[in-house]
Amino acid sequence: MKLKHVIYIMGVSGVGKSTIGLLLSEALDLPFFDGDDYHPASNISKMTSGQPLTDTDRAPWLSALNELAISQLKLKGCIIACSALKQSYRDILADSIETQTKWVHLVGSFNLIHTRINKRKGHFMSSELLQSQFETLQQPKDAIEIDISLSPQKITEIIKEKLMDKSEFGLLGLGVMGKSLSRNLARNGFRLSMYNRHVAGKEENVAAKFKEEHKELANAKPFDNLEDFVNSLQLPRRIMLMVNAGKTVDVVIDELSEHLAEGDTIIDGGNSNFQQTNERANKLKAKKLNYIGTGVSGGEEGALKGPSIMPGGDKEGYDSIAPFLTAIAAKDDNGEPCCAYIGPEGSGHFVKMIHNGIEYAEMQLLCEVYGVMTALGKDQDAIADTLESWKKSANSYLLEITIDILRKKEGDHWLLQKIMDKAGNKGTGNWATIASAQLGVPSTMIATALFARYTSFYKDDRIKLSAVYDNSSNEKPALTEADLFDAYQFCRIINHYQGLRLISEASKKYEWNLNLSEIARIWTNGCIIRSTLVKELVTILAESEELLHNKIIIAWIQKLRPAASKVVAQSILAGITVPCMSEAMNFFNGMTTARSTANLIQAQRDYFGAHTYQRIDDPTHKFHHTIWT
Amino acid sequence: MKLKHVIYIMGVSGVGKSTIGLLLSEALDLPFFDGDDYHPASNISKMTSGQPLTDTDRAPWLSALNELAISQLKLKGCIIACSALKQSYRDILADSIETQTKWVHLVGSFNLIHTRINKRKGHFMSSELLQSQFETLQQPKDAIEIDISLSPQKITEIIKEKLMDKSEFGLLGLGVMGKSLSRNLARNGFRLSMYNRHVAGKEENVAAKFKEEHKELANAKPFDNLEDFVNSLQLPRRIMLMVNAGKTVDVVIDELSEHLAEGDTIIDGGNSNFQQTNERANKLKAKKLNYIGTGVSGGEEGALKGPSIMPGGDKEGYDSIAPFLTAIAAKDDNGEPCCAYIGPEGSGHFVKMIHNGIEYAEMQLLCEVYGVMTALGKDQDAIADTLESWKKSANSYLLEITIDILRKKEGDHWLLQKIMDKAGNKGTGNWATIASAQLGVPSTMIATALFARYTSFYKDDRIKLSAVYDNSSNEKPALTEADLFDAYQFCRIINHYQGLRLISEASKKYEWNLNLSEIARIWTNGCIIRSTLVKELVTILAESEELLHNKIIIAWIQKLRPAASKVVAQSILAGITVPCMSEAMNFFNGMTTARSTANLIQAQRDYFGAHTYQRIDDPTHKFHHTIWT
Repeated sequence: MKLKHVIYIMGVSGVGKSTIGLLLSEALDLPFFDGDDYHPASNISKMTSGQPLTDTDRAPWLSALNELAISQLKLKGCIIACSALKQSYRDILADSIETQTKWVHLVGSFNLIHTRINKRKGHFMSSELLQSQFETLQQPKDAIEIDISLSPQKITEIIKEKLMDKSEFGLLGLGVMGKSLSRNLARNGFRLSMYNRHVAGKEENVAAKFKEEHKELANAKPFDNLEDFVNSLQLPRRIMLMVNAGKTVDVVIDELSEHLAEGDTIIDGGNSNFQQTNERANKLKAKKLNYIGTGVSGGEEGALKGPSIMPGGDKEGYDSIAPFLTAIAAKDDNGEPCCAYIGPEGSGHFVKMIHNGIEYAEMQLLCEVYGVMTALGKDQDAIADTLESWKKSANSYLLEITIDILRKKEGDHWLLQKIMDKAGNKGTGNWATIASAQLGVPSTMIATALFARYTSFYKDDRIKLSAVYDNSSNEKPALTEADLFDAYQFCRIINHYQGLRLISEASKKYEWNLNLSEIARIWTNGCIIRSTLVKELVTILAESEELLHNKIIIAWIQKLRPAASKVVAQSILAGITVPCMSEAMNFFNGMTTARSTANLIQAQRDYFGAHTYQRIDDPTHKFHHTIWT
Repeated sequence: MKLKHVIYIMGVSGVGKSTIGLLLSEALDLPFFDGDDYHPASNISKMTSGQPLTDTDRAPWLSALNELAISQLKLKGCIIACSALKQSYRDILADSIETQTKWVHLVGSFNLIHTRINKRKGHFMSSELLQSQFETLQQPKDAIEIDISLSPQKITEIIKEKLMDKSEFGLLGLGVMGKSLSRNLARNGFRLSMYNRHVAGKEENVAAKFKEEHKELANAKPFDNLEDFVNSLQLPRRIMLMVNAGKTVDVVIDELSEHLAEGDTIIDGGNSNFQQTNERANKLKAKKLNYIGTGVSGGEEGALKGPSIMPGGDKEGYDSIAPFLTAIAAKDDNGEPCCAYIGPEGSGHFVKMIHNGIEYAEMQLLCEVYGVMTALGKDQDAIADTLESWKKSANSYLLEITIDILRKKEGDHWLLQKIMDKAGNKGTGNWATIASAQLGVPSTMIATALFARYTSFYKDDRIKLSAVYDNSSNEKPALTEADLFDAYQFCRIINHYQGLRLISEASKKYEWNLNLSEIARIWTNGCIIRSTLVKELVTILAESEELLHNKIIIAWIQKLRPAASKVVAQSILAGITVPCMSEAMNFFNGMTTARSTANLIQAQRDYFGAHTYQRIDDPTHKFHHTIWT
């Protein structure tokens, strides 16, 4: 068991709790504590004088055991013997550690127990006293129930088997990401059940075959039957879905939830739309199931070695899965997991969506840099060398892989030259643009990067139109590598500002109370947009979320801006497509213009549609209308 | 009655159809025709010889009457006497003119009719023959039924009253647009019912007060009770909603549809979301009600004098309202109405949404021109004079109103200087951007214009940031008015291309079969984006919808492009915000680049996400994956 537990051995007096507890302690290599040793002095003297304890007497004792359990969970977990006859006692015992508490209930007939007790040296218990214990006992739910007529060794064996039998975590959907996460979980010592659907002729024994391929999955259990998969999991269950975003998620949730029990948690680790995540969470809340929508970034490799994880939803649900997600997540520079509770509802998926939006623009910016450098006459190796030199002050995962890509050859030829220039997309950039439009936040660079991909898709049109409109006569832009570096960095700052602002505005609107610095921290490792810039933003955002007012940022922008203007202007004149850089520049110019030309728009709207306008000389912000002609 | 009708006077022999028909002809100033005069010779000889006519005999005769009615409807309408006893006869009589056909059914007791006939000079009808007519008679629905025991004068009076009593068209919602459309309808001679809800203390007797204010509404009927409003309308009813887009539309439809009958038509004239229009149409189809979603552009003045109207939905519903909409619409240069059936489902609202998107970008371009000219040191009058000179070759409604706005003074000061530079928006630009993202079509200028409005809304931020990031040291751009004109026209062509392409792609996706040239024609007058450019596009699009391949456009763009590049480059260097112009330039550069840099995006996606890529040297379009490291 990778997940730490406290195991309470419970039952009426005389069932052998201490005996079993000690044997189990040895079998599981966990410390054992006899609950009776933790009674306060007042209780002991009361019991010694033959007085029965009241529930008021028991309360401090039960709390003491709970504290013991909590402190042991910080080490390796433990086993505690305690009769725990009433549910109210067990509630105290498991307080705030519900998901890490296991109950083993030893049961036997009245006669067997009575006989056993009275056989023990120096023990005597009246029939009445034992009978009253039987009457007090409230059946626990979700306990492992063991018949004490078996031998202690056999009982210990069964308990161990039952505890070890069930998996701690279920992973549903063994695509690229699901497989990588499974291996990551297994490598971290979690006992895992893995499920993949059965599709005759297409997806057969996927989980079983996958298990065979990887040593670290030796203890993982493969399934292609959903019910068996669910039943293989410990309660409360934790099941992570790694299936295609969209309808599939609903289909899987519907099938799955039939087999689940109250308190179980479903985690959607796909790139689902955050609004759908809200709807799904509400639907499952009615069934008392927890639903966590989490972003997982890092691609195939990140998922395997440690992704950046952005979970959102009910805090209770998050707590139940936190040990798993934090264990498999990437670690930041301080060794902290790149996984933290983002906020309620679909906030986790929202943040992932914006992460991907920022990623779209970062990728597009690299394309524009590549485009300008190509126009400057550099070949791929030369471009890679330049980018290599940028790593010192502006490293990022995307920069690194771009260098690899530029250098990759197929025989004597650069592979990149053979790749079709039609960029695909899988929805998050699209959604981020839509969220931007809906929230009234100008995340223009994400939109521009998305639209640049759409334009790239008009390949046939582009070929035809390039023959009609000759681009070749354009002059070479008068730019240096240093200009380009400054422009690139300038645009990246604007890009991160826009993305974070979109998160911030969503947080206000939906009352999510998100922490931008913490979000940036999660992005410092494991994810696709990890970079030195993001690391710098963690500290800056911790001071204030008003990024453009930060002194470091101000100094930086003022240094970079002239070159950025120059690169955009020269590229436009040379006919080089730099939509994302242009947009960064225009957005920045717009945001730093106190008096814009939008007064004309308001006048036009009032002219033709009587939409009214406000005045700069009217502090009441009243709306005015003019008859213009 | 403005709407032309054919009034069939029907009933068994001897009810006095000719008498009433002649009197009514005089009262309504419409020609009267006795249906019996239109029997073919074969029928006459059959009847003369006492043989009864079969339905086969009657068919050509009924068709002849239908043809008569159709030809008379092209003039002023008419009255036709015809027994029309069976529904199948009436179906032929009203074929293809259902909505313009009125039925007057003269009814009396067998005895009264029998006595009357046999009193007539030279007439004799056996009881059996009359009885057989009574047996043949199938009760018409929706007919005006009149008791022939009244005097012919009285009967004529009642019919006239009943025909004139009901309004031809209902308008619901008397906001700015609803009022203007009501006056337009009334001025065009339509008998109108007008409804506005009653909200105590806020909206009381709105319709009645409105009627009092305008002479042309003398015959219009005001209501604030919905049921009375509905009952005041002729069948099939035609009701146009001019209420706020969104939930209000659903609320009104729900209330309204309780009182409506099969075949009635609801028209939503607001800026509703096209997807909601689809949903509403489907909902109402189940109730056998027609639903037309129509764009109405032209603002307050256009609605009054003649707007551009873009109706979409079921063709049957459109046919029922076409006479009204085409009458009140603006007229194009050939005198044709700027209103035509757009296509099925929400296509009318879609086209209006894109119209507004184009409008957003056109407005933003004028703001950018205004911004650059201001940076060049021109005052508002000088800018207005320059724009005035542009009218010769590039006139548009928005250019005209911009000139008016620039010149408008409040005392000694230009009013525009006092207007707050925070631009509002009411949804369509937002939706157009979302549609663009969803359909995968790069309508970048609409998105950029929308986002420019959003940026303008950050007024407080802009003021603060302008103090931090000094813009004032920028050089004056080295640009002429001619450069600016060329850039403006270049960007407008790209803007219209993008908007029309979005319509074209939606038409393909939703199978709407839209006609771009016809849409442009509707936009040549009445609407906000009317311009000489749009007029030129009508002809160009009629030849081919591939706008950028048209010779005129090619020549134009090649002439304009250098100045456009220059304006964008110089503005960027001078710190002037020109997002829409920049985007036009970048989009054009992107669309005319045969080999783009999107190959790098595909390589990156394959690197980190195993998303695969296609190759330019693999004609099978197969997807490849590379292990990059």
